[in-house]
Amino acid sequence: MKQSTLFTKTQKTPPKEDGINAQLLVQAGFIHKEMAGVYSFLPLGLLVFNRIVGIIREEMNAIGGQELELASLQDAEPWKKTGRWSDKEIDIWFKTKLKNETEVGLANTHEEPMTNLLRHHISSWRDLPLYIYQFQTKFRNELRARNGLLRTREFVMKDLYSFSKNKEEHDQFYEKVKEAYHNIFSRLGIGDSTLLTFASGGSFSEYSHEFQAICEAGEDTIYVCDECHIAVNKEIIEKQSTCPECSKSNLNEKRAIEVGNIFPLGTRFADTLGLTFTDENGEAKAPVMGSYGIGPGRAMATIIELLHDKKGIVWPKEVAPFGIHLLSLMGGESDAENLYKELLNKGIDILYDDRSETSAGEKLADADLIGIPLRIVVSAKTHNEDTIEVSMRAKENEQEYIKRKDALKFLQENI
Amino acid sequence: MKQSTLFTKTQKTPPKEDGINAQLLVQAGFIHKEMAGVYSFLPLGLLVFNRIVGIIREEMNAIGGQELELASLQDAEPWKKTGRWSDKEIDIWFKTKLKNETEVGLANTHEEPMTNLLRHHISSWRDLPLYIYQFQTKFRNELRARNGLLRTREFVMKDLYSFSKNKEEHDQFYEKVKEAYHNIFSRLGIGDSTLLTFASGGSFSEYSHEFQAICEAGEDTIYVCDECHIAVNKEIIEKQSTCPECSKSNLNEKRAIEVGNIFPLGTRFADTLGLTFTDENGEAKAPVMGSYGIGPGRAMATIIELLHDKKGIVWPKEVAPFGIHLLSLMGGESDAENLYKELLNKGIDILYDDRSETSAGEKLADADLIGIPLRIVVSAKTHNEDTIEVSMRAKENEQEYIKRKDALKFLQENI
Repeated sequence: MKQSTLFTKTQKTPPKEDGINAQLLVQAGFIHKEMAGVYSFLPLGLLVFNRIVGIIREEMNAIGGQELELASLQDAEPWKKTGRWSDKEIDIWFKTKLKNETEVGLANTHEEPMTNLLRHHISSWRDLPLYIYQFQTKFRNELRARNGLLRTREFVMKDLYSFSKNKEEHDQFYEKVKEAYHNIFSRLGIGDSTLLTFASGGSFSEYSHEFQAICEAGEDTIYVCDECHIAVNKEIIEKQSTCPECSKSNLNEKRAIEVGNIFPLGTRFADTLGLTFTDENGEAKAPVMGSYGIGPGRAMATIIELLHDKKGIVWPKEVAPFGIHLLSLMGGESDAENLYKELLNKGIDILYDDRSETSAGEKLADADLIGIPLRIVVSAKTHNEDTIEVSMRAKENEQEYIKRKDALKFLQENI
Repeated sequence: MKQSTLFTKTQKTPPKEDGINAQLLVQAGFIHKEMAGVYSFLPLGLLVFNRIVGIIREEMNAIGGQELELASLQDAEPWKKTGRWSDKEIDIWFKTKLKNETEVGLANTHEEPMTNLLRHHISSWRDLPLYIYQFQTKFRNELRARNGLLRTREFVMKDLYSFSKNKEEHDQFYEKVKEAYHNIFSRLGIGDSTLLTFASGGSFSEYSHEFQAICEAGEDTIYVCDECHIAVNKEIIEKQSTCPECSKSNLNEKRAIEVGNIFPLGTRFADTLGLTFTDENGEAKAPVMGSYGIGPGRAMATIIELLHDKKGIVWPKEVAPFGIHLLSLMGGESDAENLYKELLNKGIDILYDDRSETSAGEKLADADLIGIPLRIVVSAKTHNEDTIEVSMRAKENEQEYIKRKDALKFLQENI
């Protein structure tokens, strides 16, 4: 992609945004603020978003997930049955009306429609277990949207729902999701900061679990056991002041961002909505459910909050919009053009700063702001020395020079 | 994908649905009806949907489109400026309210927010032309949703918006989109039935254009010139009763489905919303706009309406959920299992009917209903003869027998 034709430009001065994530994403041209808590994804932002979605999808498929996509418009009926239609019960509903005055909701989660859907698609124990998930737009009427992409009124969520024949089968899958979530956060580059955090389990389980990324910008407070590398949330610390794994008592209070959660639902939704299957003995039983969420947009914001520096964003390899940022400075134009074409021929798309009226200083500052992992600079100097200058955004751009003839091989090995 | 674990089963009897597309899609387990005009996409349906999206994306990128994704929640302000906020002006608005009682809309189209967005991202003639597009969920409060996926209240639309420096540049791109749209409908397998159709151009152009697929189930009436393989719509026939290209007068009335439209917008939105750029002479000018829509869900419905037979769906190659449907009948189990593994090893995912308690008759009927292009049957008969039975859904499954040792090569060449 040539930067001269890329839609959206960087801004010289940081915009007024709530949260460093939104400030950098807007300044670097990844997102656009439509109104408080509502953002659009511009081409660079959509690339990152899609890479995060791709990682989550791979990990969900690896544990047997099947992808589908439910609607946003919600029939009130099943929500009335579970008692969650009322604004008193769920205080972030957006509702609207059909022409005939029927009230409909905008999905803020999907337990009810998923359970309802399964009434049409399971009958026997042979149909279970089922693990179904989606990347679907949720609408939440937050009183105060804040912190950029961390708390918005409209966002895509990966929500997975599991339906198991019994508690044992449920528990086994629940543990698999824990592993998959650890894989996801580690591939997103925030694995070291993200802790499994014990939360209240509701009526069907002792605990549910959050994945909390330790970060000053977070809204949540967690209590970390350094020994076990896990944490408990506020609800739990009030009931028990010790680590649920090693029983150690002096836990460390930290600010954190909830980047995922997994929740045992038991048979609550199945019971209320009349979802059953016939077991091996011919008896009608309710499947045991779980739900499992990750917001790719919030994950994107968390990556920035944790990994930026004073010059801009620092994308981890697996989520960067491009693997390589090629900067063409004066005297390096023909080298840049040739290298760009060679990489395209190898099927490697890069961001190529080919702008002819932009100074070297601006190009370097933009590259720091945009945060692509591997940078190549070509200039009169490198042209004369028959080299390219290579540096890594995460290593403060310490420069290394590679012979021009070895460039392609080096780049193929290092992206 | 093993059919024994696939979420959603076929239904024996066709459900009561408005439109053969919805009837077949629900019966075959591709979609689920949430309420009138609101459908969810189940795994098979999402696969087809994503293949259609993939084709459209390739063709949009090929003409220089850049993908982004705008929000659904809409600030009223720009719509008030263009006079399109009122329910009298746009009678299919869904609106809802923030906690502070501010009214917001649910996007039914995106001219206003796209124009508004560009105010932040273009300044000079060097920034133009720009072609930006998205696959984005639209909400339309239709008085009567009907005809399955043909007219729904919630659907994804590919909407492209072009911003050009002047009318000549606009016109050139407009012609490119025409070509791209022809490519898309031809790859979707409905190219022969889909005609460029002249429609009213509004105040900025003599014509806009629809792409109309000739089909009895269509809501629209068009008038076809057999000579030129184009049509005019109802608005146009009332003004002029002749073909706009050859001036022939006896046009044939046909029912048709509008599967795409392209529309010159002139400077109407830019003027009203204050979008300008500085041209080569330093003067402020409004960019010339166009908008270009295709609904992947409606395209999917149209494919079914045009290509089904009395046994079920007949997917064209490029949009089928899988290229191959492997049916394991009694005595063919080990052959099926081996072939499935060999294909997976070659990176070819197929639908594999491995169900052990389903009769041969049911499997064949399901395969007809689901409509995958290439079918393989293995049974005691083929096992004894050391062959596989191959047939094409579109050719009424005339059988051909391929030697087992040649199977992999044959299949790789024929999907």
